[in-house]
Amino acid sequence: MIKTKNDLKSITVNGLREGIGIINITHLLSLEELKNKGKLFGKLELEINSSIGFHKHIDDFEVYYILKGKGLVKDNKANYIVEEGDVIYTTSGESHSLTNIGENKLELLAVVINLE
Amino acid sequence: MIKTKNDLKSITVNGLREGIGIINITHLLSLEELKNKGKLFGKLELEINSSIGFHKHIDDFEVYYILKGKGLVKDNKANYIVEEGDVIYTTSGESHSLTNIGENKLELLAVVINLE
Repeated sequence: MIKTKNDLKSITVNGLREGIGIINITHLLSLEELKNKGKLFGKLELEINSSIGFHKHIDDFEVYYILKGKGLVKDNKANYIVEEGDVIYTTSGESHSLTNIGENKLELLAVVINLE
Repeated sequence: MIKTKNDLKSITVNGLREGIGIINITHLLSLEELKNKGKLFGKLELEINSSIGFHKHIDDFEVYYILKGKGLVKDNKANYIVEEGDVIYTTSGESHSLTNIGENKLELLAVVINLE
């Protein structure tokens, strides 16, 4: 099945995972297409200064793949600056947050795969 | 865990899935990190005219997310042109191929998740 960029609809959330500001989410796959193997396969766009709040993963792992922009990741207790091409991997029992610290949108792919 | 773009190593294959030409594969996650939930989480770069040969998926599904360039997808029996932002979803029992028909590299994310 092909879904063109124009077929895909984005939704806007304010305060994702108790973060700050506006984030646009484009679900590339539906939950049905993920067939209970994952919770999210989407492209996220964080507006300037927006953030995904610090949250813990249990019984799943998440991958962020940075497409564009500049972010600050809190990865458990450490902080890192991330840019295009960088990968953040957070498995069960671990926590992370992500803040757009750049001067443009921060774009990334976010994928959550179930471990149960 | 953070993996910067510079940490990630790419490998070069010639004739992926019996396709034509050179493809560079950067594994964003290892099989260990995929924890038996998937077979591939990688970035692929197809040189001009290179292709991933037509192949069938059994007991898994694959997502291609086009990052840059222009490709021709054979999705089961239909052909489509795909570009940046397009998604190709191929589940168990289905087949696909992908050919770079653009004038630059064709870059995409490829993710294979197990259904068993």
